[in-house]
Amino acid sequence: MPANPSDPVRVLVWGENRHEQIEPHVAAIYPDGMHNTIAAGISENLGDRARVTTTTLDEPEHGLTDEVLNDLDVLVWWGHAAHGEVADDVVERVHRHVLSGLGLVVLHSGHWSKIFGKLMGTTCTLRWRSEQDRELVWTVDPTHPITEGVPNPIIIDAQEMYGETFDIPAPDELIFISSFTGGEVFRSGCTFRRGHGKIFFFSPGDQDYPVYHHADVRRVIANGVAWVKSDRPRTLPTLLRYETDDFFNGHGYTGPIESQEEQAHAPTN
Amino acid sequence: MPANPSDPVRVLVWGENRHEQIEPHVAAIYPDGMHNTIAAGISENLGDRARVTTTTLDEPEHGLTDEVLNDLDVLVWWGHAAHGEVADDVVERVHRHVLSGLGLVVLHSGHWSKIFGKLMGTTCTLRWRSEQDRELVWTVDPTHPITEGVPNPIIIDAQEMYGETFDIPAPDELIFISSFTGGEVFRSGCTFRRGHGKIFFFSPGDQDYPVYHHADVRRVIANGVAWVKSDRPRTLPTLLRYETDDFFNGHGYTGPIESQEEQAHAPTN
Amino acid sequence: MPANPSDPVRVLVWGENRHEQIEPHVAAIYPDGMHNTIAAGISENLGDRARVTTTTLDEPEHGLTDEVLNDLDVLVWWGHAAHGEVADDVVERVHRHVLSGLGLVVLHSGHWSKIFGKLMGTTCTLRWRSEQDRELVWTVDPTHPITEGVPNPIIIDAQEMYGETFDIPAPDELIFISSFTGGEVFRSGCTFRRGHGKIFFFSPGDQDYPVYHHADVRRVIANGVAWVKSDRPRTLPTLLRYETDDFFNGHGYTGPIESQEEQAHAPTN
Amino acid sequence: MPANPSDPVRVLVWGENRHEQIEPHVAAIYPDGMHNTIAAGISENLGDRARVTTTTLDEPEHGLTDEVLNDLDVLVWWGHAAHGEVADDVVERVHRHVLSGLGLVVLHSGHWSKIFGKLMGTTCTLRWRSEQDRELVWTVDPTHPITEGVPNPIIIDAQEMYGETFDIPAPDELIFISSFTGGEVFRSGCTFRRGHGKIFFFSPGDQDYPVYHHADVRRVIANGVAWVKSDRPRTLPTLLRYETDDFFNGHGYTGPIESQEEQAHAPTN
Repeated sequence: MPANPSDPVRVLVWGENRHEQIEPHVAAIYPDGMHNTIAAGISENLGDRARVTTTTLDEPEHGLTDEVLNDLDVLVWWGHAAHGEVADDVVERVHRHVLSGLGLVVLHSGHWSKIFGKLMGTTCTLRWRSEQDRELVWTVDPTHPITEGVPNPIIIDAQEMYGETFDIPAPDELIFISSFTGGEVFRSGCTFRRGHGKIFFFSPGDQDYPVYHHADVRRVIANGVAWVKSDRPRTLPTLLRYETDDFFNGHGYTGPIESQEEQAHAPTN
Repeated sequence: MPANPSDPVRVLVWGENRHEQIEPHVAAIYPDGMHNTIAAGISENLGDRARVTTTTLDEPEHGLTDEVLNDLDVLVWWGHAAHGEVADDVVERVHRHVLSGLGLVVLHSGHWSKIFGKLMGTTCTLRWRSEQDRELVWTVDPTHPITEGVPNPIIIDAQEMYGETFDIPAPDELIFISSFTGGEVFRSGCTFRRGHGKIFFFSPGDQDYPVYHHADVRRVIANGVAWVKSDRPRTLPTLLRYETDDFFNGHGYTGPIESQEEQAHAPTN
Repeated sequence: MPANPSDPVRVLVWGENRHEQIEPHVAAIYPDGMHNTIAAGISENLGDRARVTTTTLDEPEHGLTDEVLNDLDVLVWWGHAAHGEVADDVVERVHRHVLSGLGLVVLHSGHWSKIFGKLMGTTCTLRWRSEQDRELVWTVDPTHPITEGVPNPIIIDAQEMYGETFDIPAPDELIFISSFTGGEVFRSGCTFRRGHGKIFFFSPGDQDYPVYHHADVRRVIANGVAWVKSDRPRTLPTLLRYETDDFFNGHGYTGPIESQEEQAHAPTN
Repeated sequence: MPANPSDPVRVLVWGENRHEQIEPHVAAIYPDGMHNTIAAGISENLGDRARVTTTTLDEPEHGLTDEVLNDLDVLVWWGHAAHGEVADDVVERVHRHVLSGLGLVVLHSGHWSKIFGKLMGTTCTLRWRSEQDRELVWTVDPTHPITEGVPNPIIIDAQEMYGETFDIPAPDELIFISSFTGGEVFRSGCTFRRGHGKIFFFSPGDQDYPVYHHADVRRVIANGVAWVKSDRPRTLPTLLRYETDDFFNGHGYTGPIESQEEQAHAPTN
């Protein structure tokens, strides 16, 4: 929730927007583009409480300049076929914003995006199959704000299967576990805090199925958007030196060896 | 513990080995080099249960070739002044080995190493001061194997101060919390599982103080080495497709769009 | 935050109210009783967003009838000298309400209350000393709503020392870590989810020191009250049988052995 | 693993042993009693590394005297129809031993035993159905010692269904997630640390199906037995007072109010 309920959450839905261009069956399901469908689902649920915009991979700098990111509370990420085309410096920039407090919702194949991998530190691999399995999304954390207003389980008639073992760090909160017709299971709703940023990963959603038209899926994404939003000023955690008995005035780092005059540039990972 | 108690844990202590060359007061404390002192502490505790070797930044490929890493169970990392000099491709290699099952013990300033940052996904920043604070290392998880055989608290007469907020993901297990003369606190012993690898971060230890000669610190590091060791074959988690009802025969990934013939190269983060 | 911002959080501060009656030095610090001082601190911070009342051990049923509990969102608990006098059936009732969604804030010596022990399952023991240590309360989770608006660290000039090892389950979220003049550390701010209820334990506060007059301590308690409040209907998790393919109509439990006619009364722990 | 590999783990399998007496179809599946079948599975896997005995509800004090418990490393618990018949004082005793370091493996319907509820603090309720669902047990934590040597998934042809939401505290480690023919999911393998004791809950196993004859299930239980075993002396966490600068000599608690002469008896929950 925003600190001031009259301030809407500023949300940007980032879509890769490639399948819709290349594959007619995807365009038929998502004639407005997946990003616009996802955005509509957020607006549908949050109404005036959110200002929702979209951008895509093909925009200059993928639509993710510092100016754009500074004007956001939450970034929603959908990518799949072109993770490798996302420029590394843009990924660095988004990473810095997330660690500074930008909320991030990562959807479906976004598990393999550069930004999610960089935040998790693991391979984020899994088992999968696209054979129209029914997905049941079960609530494990029944009072979490992200689960509000959805049935237990959410029933998705046809979906790509994502299965364990999902190579992620143990999530801070496990919200949903899905099962599939084939019997596989998946930690389909997980939260992570990284730096000053909150992250919600939610796996339902695929270009081959109309999942982002599903009312419950839309509700969960909107809940996730509200949850990852931070009320604090955006600041990057910084290494600071503090004198004894002065707890509040940190001094900038001037390098690892006292005599050296230049500041060492430590990795920002 | 090794699966077969007669197989020693194969440990490599990686030392930056710069302070000892440049700063006489460090060389006076660690005449054999910090890496050799750390290695001696491990051998002192594990005896025949470990085969301990060392290498340093200035070796070709920093002494961390695939051949070397394949012959290891555990890598112990100490770096501080020259994190930026560690080659990115070596960091990628070590990262891949950790995710495949290589155990990793990260010591003290290693919190800001490229490899630790890459595994954590955060800035790993903190507050600090080097003014000979006394550090008390308190046990929070009293039956964890890493705490075996050390007093509560461990008393370190003089140390660099590391204080909260430490920008790391919430650890899987919080083992130790330290306090300092100035009143600061720090999560000084933390474990993380990433991929198939286990990681232990332990903050006591600095080039300016004889901390790696301290019997209890040496015991904790040796316990950590034993704990991060994996008994499983080293394999990288991999994305695989599974047919319905065939749970055990995964197929390699052939790209995100069915019609395309070339395999897409997704990021390996 | 309440679902409807115009609905105030209904808070009851439960105070043991014995030290104030018996010990003049406590009465001098808390002339209105500790419970009223704590309540005033909540009202000071939440204003119209909370309706704060108080009750004490000596009331009939300790002021905690089902009628009272049904009319609450949050219970704040302060006890110390008379944990043993709290009736077991009242503890059972409060436990059931917490598992059904009543928020609970446990303060200071409440670590050893029957209700906290029953929720934790452990001894909740610790090390302690009352010698006017300065307590510094450090923030570990800097963007958690409970830390909003307080400095890092909070400085409490004189306090009872609580130190590790604190025998609690690993908290779901570790919010604050304190240090004391003597060098001890303590996990002083922890959250737990149990059943449908959220719990915040916050250790600062003692009858011998004016800690509940401290602006930052009052702010944290008020933040905790807002955080533990649930927006869901109060319901106890219940064992239910579900037929295949009917995910939404659970049937009551009729005992462990098919042929038996009477319902078995399983423990409600 | 025992500190000294030549010392076998001392295991006691506690079985309710009622279904086998009352229901012929259960006796047909478990002619030796379920407890003896479970015990045989542990011995089969641990061999000389374990000394496995059994006892049942109908023994005096349910076979769980202090003398018996003092001579154990690990207690394995199977109960279902008669949880309510387990005497409260025996539950208190077992609870105290677990908090002091006795390892505990809780199987299947043991989720609703008094001892598990007392350790968890929650209702431990779930959804269920007994209609011969196939259960698939998926590994979420692939390098955990408890998962060693079993396939992913373990396939159990016929089983009772246990489904989410399972009302337990978030486990310290989530090891297995199961799915069922009907589509339900369950956190079927979880670890918890409570006091000085380690707990492993593993849900597969039911009186109506031959699950404890399944080689993989037997392997997991044996792995769990090895994992919960503690190498430390058995001691209950205790409240102690420590003087400033004396970190190692705790003093017994003498009551909450200084002037009182008798020791207050605080609740032991």
